[in-house]
Amino acid sequence: MKIALDAMGGDTAPETTVAGAVRAARELPVEIVLVGQQDAIEPLLKGYPSRPDNITIVHAAESIGMHESPAAAVRKKRDSSINVGLELLKQGQVQAFISAGNTGAAVAASTLTVGLLPGVERPGIAIQLPGLKDDTVLIDVGANITPKPLHLLQYAIMGEAYSRYVLGRANPKVGLLNVGEEEGKGTDFIKETYELLQTGKFNFIGNVEGHDIFSGEVDVIVCDGFAGNVALKTAESLAHAIGTILKRSLTRSFMTRLGAALARDAFQEIRSELDYAERGGAPLLGVNGVSIIAHGASGAKAIKNAIRVAHETVRTELNRHMIEAVKASIPKPA
Amino acid sequence: MKIALDAMGGDTAPETTVAGAVRAARELPVEIVLVGQQDAIEPLLKGYPSRPDNITIVHAAESIGMHESPAAAVRKKRDSSINVGLELLKQGQVQAFISAGNTGAAVAASTLTVGLLPGVERPGIAIQLPGLKDDTVLIDVGANITPKPLHLLQYAIMGEAYSRYVLGRANPKVGLLNVGEEEGKGTDFIKETYELLQTGKFNFIGNVEGHDIFSGEVDVIVCDGFAGNVALKTAESLAHAIGTILKRSLTRSFMTRLGAALARDAFQEIRSELDYAERGGAPLLGVNGVSIIAHGASGAKAIKNAIRVAHETVRTELNRHMIEAVKASIPKPA
Repeated sequence: MKIALDAMGGDTAPETTVAGAVRAARELPVEIVLVGQQDAIEPLLKGYPSRPDNITIVHAAESIGMHESPAAAVRKKRDSSINVGLELLKQGQVQAFISAGNTGAAVAASTLTVGLLPGVERPGIAIQLPGLKDDTVLIDVGANITPKPLHLLQYAIMGEAYSRYVLGRANPKVGLLNVGEEEGKGTDFIKETYELLQTGKFNFIGNVEGHDIFSGEVDVIVCDGFAGNVALKTAESLAHAIGTILKRSLTRSFMTRLGAALARDAFQEIRSELDYAERGGAPLLGVNGVSIIAHGASGAKAIKNAIRVAHETVRTELNRHMIEAVKASIPKPA
Repeated sequence: MKIALDAMGGDTAPETTVAGAVRAARELPVEIVLVGQQDAIEPLLKGYPSRPDNITIVHAAESIGMHESPAAAVRKKRDSSINVGLELLKQGQVQAFISAGNTGAAVAASTLTVGLLPGVERPGIAIQLPGLKDDTVLIDVGANITPKPLHLLQYAIMGEAYSRYVLGRANPKVGLLNVGEEEGKGTDFIKETYELLQTGKFNFIGNVEGHDIFSGEVDVIVCDGFAGNVALKTAESLAHAIGTILKRSLTRSFMTRLGAALARDAFQEIRSELDYAERGGAPLLGVNGVSIIAHGASGAKAIKNAIRVAHETVRTELNRHMIEAVKASIPKPA
């Protein structure tokens, strides 16, 4: 299996993308294609004592910055690492593409270059979030901020397949993100979506709330990309604030520093339970190929895990399962 | 100053509402009117060794449950503690009303009973959230899930006045919650709102993201009630999950338990920095009277602080300031 990685995408690329690729190349049965500026990547690879022979480079002269306007950048920078990597995917030279770069650009270029799966109207970003009981998949977190109810039905179908085939859940529970649990709550858009989700051939448990995102009681939570993006970034913001305040408080006195040192294992445990880097990347579900969106702040571990997610998504033939499920959801003409 | 408290509202009412009222009666220069079932409240008050003489009871035979349909319950249960308390507010017998009960019912009954401030089209719930640098006011978190751009302009004006007069900020920074910081991001609704906010006579700093909610860099963040509700509940959910995992991890071994005991002050500090109970209640801005929404899970401390917020809101004449600011925002006919 060959997986292309946008070597230039991310806050600390290409150093961390190359480091993540080297780790993945050692641990996973994949060939990794680093896409980006040859003379930026090559010296970094040479820095490793034993360069894994399952890493190759495909040169791309340009790269898209984190704050460039996605649509314009994708159109103009034809030779960007994102465009070149997705071209490899389109031509079947790789089986998956990963970028920790400009999310909007990765979404737009994926859709334009490889197109959508048969029957799918819009792609959605499915992120795996840690929860008290277990992880939850939240879809969509920003690919589609003005969806129609049908898009959310398709997100439910695709998110359910991801939960089932890639994460290995039996009969995943699917909920609709709303402002209350009772039926009839929410905007007209939400009510219409609720009706449609009830027709789905999956375990729809009804409305859920923001409270349910980190309870881990629901396997898949469906929402529009605006609400999903707000929820995700709010959670990141709070986690950062708690971490910072805790660190500040724990280093304030000799006693608290001593306590923190003794309780080190506990902090390690919570860090690893909540660490997004453990979960790697978020697949852009619905595009005709495996395209993984990684966090812009991804370190080497997150990049390695994004490659693992790509590998699992290809290995379990998620797209084939999704095509079948989407097809089965379309009412037969009378 | 007289403040009415819905004694029957909240997950653990009337025990905690009465306990909170007793604390507030001792600490604040206010008279508290407990509204609810006389024979449920009276014995609880008698349980206190010295009953403060600035607490009185107004009987209300009914109460609205946390999961009742708000509009129907407000209409049918005319003698509920929420309706009776708001009637006192309307008649000027009290200067503020507080409920930790059914939020939808408190919003609907407040709007129906006391009406809106001149010029205001819809009320919004303004919640004060803790942040790394300082607290942030998020408005609206659920009163109005399908707002128009004008409603968000008015939330900005009212939230800014709350930040300025009640929280004491000079020249508060106001941001619009969006999926990216660049101008031109977001849905058509958001873009139209952005244009309108630029006409406001306040310090509008443009788009902000979920990331900014807990950074504490922005004084007031404006959003529709759907996104605000999702953000708030997601944050509560994550805080709960982190607290639970931390507790579990810290009690796992002798060493971690010892460490946690030594670092006790640090945990105390973070708990108090992030504790919503310290912040009390969220004013429903825009209604013609002071109406405070408290968290359903409010304990005595949160109730006491909701009474403090009500007292501050009345004392600083927030409504007078808001009426002037809203009036000044309406373009003069040519």
